[in-house]
Amino acid sequence: MADVKAILAGKYPAKAHARRVVEWMRAKNPGVSGVLYLEGQKTRMIEDNDETQPFRQRRFFYYLTGCALPDSYFTYDIDNDKSTLFIPPIEPESVIWSGLPLSVDEALSLYDVDQVLTTDQVASTIAHPHSSSAVWAIANQVSDHITFLEFNEKDFSLLKLAIEECRVIKDEYEVALTRHANDISTIAHTAVLKAVKHAKNERELEAIFIAKSISHGAREQAYHSIVASGTAAATLHYLKNSEPLTGKLNLLLDAGAEYDCYASDITRTFPINGRFSSESRAIYDIVLQMQNVCTNMLKEGVIWDAVHLTAHEIAIEGLLKLGILQGDKEDILKTRTSVAFFPHGLGHYLGMDTHDTGGHPNYEDKDSIFRYLRVRGPLPAGAIITVEPGIYFCRFIIEPYLTDPVHAAYINFDVLNKFWEVGGVRIEDNILITKDGYENLTTAVKDVTKMEELINGS
Amino acid sequence: MADVKAILAGKYPAKAHARRVVEWMRAKNPGVSGVLYLEGQKTRMIEDNDETQPFRQRRFFYYLTGCALPDSYFTYDIDNDKSTLFIPPIEPESVIWSGLPLSVDEALSLYDVDQVLTTDQVASTIAHPHSSSAVWAIANQVSDHITFLEFNEKDFSLLKLAIEECRVIKDEYEVALTRHANDISTIAHTAVLKAVKHAKNERELEAIFIAKSISHGAREQAYHSIVASGTAAATLHYLKNSEPLTGKLNLLLDAGAEYDCYASDITRTFPINGRFSSESRAIYDIVLQMQNVCTNMLKEGVIWDAVHLTAHEIAIEGLLKLGILQGDKEDILKTRTSVAFFPHGLGHYLGMDTHDTGGHPNYEDKDSIFRYLRVRGPLPAGAIITVEPGIYFCRFIIEPYLTDPVHAAYINFDVLNKFWEVGGVRIEDNILITKDGYENLTTAVKDVTKMEELINGS
Repeated sequence: MADVKAILAGKYPAKAHARRVVEWMRAKNPGVSGVLYLEGQKTRMIEDNDETQPFRQRRFFYYLTGCALPDSYFTYDIDNDKSTLFIPPIEPESVIWSGLPLSVDEALSLYDVDQVLTTDQVASTIAHPHSSSAVWAIANQVSDHITFLEFNEKDFSLLKLAIEECRVIKDEYEVALTRHANDISTIAHTAVLKAVKHAKNERELEAIFIAKSISHGAREQAYHSIVASGTAAATLHYLKNSEPLTGKLNLLLDAGAEYDCYASDITRTFPINGRFSSESRAIYDIVLQMQNVCTNMLKEGVIWDAVHLTAHEIAIEGLLKLGILQGDKEDILKTRTSVAFFPHGLGHYLGMDTHDTGGHPNYEDKDSIFRYLRVRGPLPAGAIITVEPGIYFCRFIIEPYLTDPVHAAYINFDVLNKFWEVGGVRIEDNILITKDGYENLTTAVKDVTKMEELINGS
Repeated sequence: MADVKAILAGKYPAKAHARRVVEWMRAKNPGVSGVLYLEGQKTRMIEDNDETQPFRQRRFFYYLTGCALPDSYFTYDIDNDKSTLFIPPIEPESVIWSGLPLSVDEALSLYDVDQVLTTDQVASTIAHPHSSSAVWAIANQVSDHITFLEFNEKDFSLLKLAIEECRVIKDEYEVALTRHANDISTIAHTAVLKAVKHAKNERELEAIFIAKSISHGAREQAYHSIVASGTAAATLHYLKNSEPLTGKLNLLLDAGAEYDCYASDITRTFPINGRFSSESRAIYDIVLQMQNVCTNMLKEGVIWDAVHLTAHEIAIEGLLKLGILQGDKEDILKTRTSVAFFPHGLGHYLGMDTHDTGGHPNYEDKDSIFRYLRVRGPLPAGAIITVEPGIYFCRFIIEPYLTDPVHAAYINFDVLNKFWEVGGVRIEDNILITKDGYENLTTAVKDVTKMEELINGS
């Protein structure tokens, strides 16, 4: 494992990203030349209020700059291989209240760009393009005062597509960022495990997760955490995170810190009282097996759809053994009855967005088993993907299956009725695809004995 | 003191607010009748991402509904005194992933409205106004599909103004919400005091504040906290909250939890090592005196400008005694030299916004001492205002005074030079104005001995 700290001590490889993006564009259109143009996210005010909205840098901009400053701009002169970052100039009135902003020299030493100017120079700089007269920008992400009048050719679609596709394959620096986000999340997950037995409600646990993230340098969460106790774990997009824990079996914690715009995304499910019930343990073991088998399949070129199908096969085998499902394994797979218990996709690309770009899902797929699969086709080396199988007992999802004779024949209602209180189990790790296999970036505990030890403080 | 818990067990007095707003509008325009129309904040997606933006309910909408649901609507039929809340209908596809939303019956029992319908009924409901044919709405807060075609009269300014002015005077329920937000913030402030001596950096302290807020039911902060150590406390809009504490004298913590859309806003300044330096203590004592004297002046009808001036007089007296200022107190007040050390206003209204509506500031005021005062004129009973005097040693602010002979004559450079490391001291409480005086809603410790005890764990 490369040394994360040493890698992150260097600069985010923005220049290499610019070159990769141009390479991708030229593969589509060999005539690509001129200027790439990107704008960072603007400072925006809260409506009817004098505070700014929470700031989130535009991912396209960050990919080519490594710069998280609001109100910044970027150009890349393709033919001269020259990148320019434009940062906000010093405003004396603002310095009085907010102190000195980042200087041009500081920016030049922080970011992997060839030149730093201030944003009052953007319009005049691009008014005199150095080389060819084409500009590549992103639709709806160009300010009104930027007219591109001097350019003969303007394209507002290829650049975005190129960045979305290039983002799939992570370089060493991006892997280190993801690993660091994972390390912070692991600290936070562990703290929740240690606290769950004595916590009163879900929000106390969410507070612990957020506090550990912030105190270890991850100010943002990658996504809205799911802190779901008891049957709430069956609600896949559970948002409340406020219910009492008393009398509930398990906690499903799906939470990940974000570090320098890079996400982690980790789910663990564990017994609130420190000991799984036999039903919970049975479901947990199936999900863990789904995850282990699927993860072990991973390497460059593996078809994600096939891995997802394997997860369903293991789920079916496990649910047959428990007696929740009945009948022939192949028939059940064919009728897609297991989708009632595992309704979502096995995983998604992970990067600057939690559901990262380039997965080519087909949400219109007529086949229910693939409809919500966020990645389709072969996985390239360098991709980071989540492996997050789950089995849920959600009445809203399962009940339509119980009243449909095609599916109902395969479900044993009496056995099923013993499992509603399990809620749902999901186990999710972040996996780097390599040429010969994979590397698991997630180190949070998932072994039952170790989890129970942490919860029980032994 | 009324029982906060008992008051908050009741409903937010939305109907009374609707009536008050109409009363205010009729005082301006006796012919006001017809329908008040308001929209809540919409669910909005993060750009280039499949997660929603953090949700913040529109304050105008909340004031008349007490409802924090996204994508909701409200009408108030003035002549029939009938309020209607429109909530999102159940969408079967969404129930599968997110569970059941609030039902019409649940909404009716939760909110102080006469009728609850679903949002698919908004357009048809307002297409047939019951009584007169005037509609009162807020500019830029009306959806495209709402045309108001059936109304002869449409006004897009009076309603907003009316709500802004009515919000100044808080009723019992609003005071209880503010008090509860204050109580949560006090727990969080106390936790930071107890942790500061052994914390490594500012972000560990911010994490503690946020975690305590969330675990006590305040998911949102009222504003971006200022956790400023050492000289950073002189940066009034300090945002970093990440610097190490080693070797710094004091921490300025300006942080407040938000509870059910109501803000608290509390600042404390204390010694990181548990004992104020003599310079820090001297400045702290002046600021505490500014706060005590100003707070004791407060009651219905007091002119806020005069209270602010009093704060400056005490600051001048204190700084004269320390020798940082020199010369005649009245002359110094006249030249506004004390603005170099106390550059901001004494306080602002507090409510659903941290800087609440209705203060009538004049940011163009030629007189530097009043330019940033966010409230001008007499204070009504029922207003909640912050009293937050401060003294800062900010080079960007003070240095222009040192080079201006009018001011420089009153400043003793040698004495001043001993105080830069103090950074800045601010003490801020939330005060309810009453007919005969005031009530301090903030109970966080500010007595030096008690603060030092908490820090030192004795």
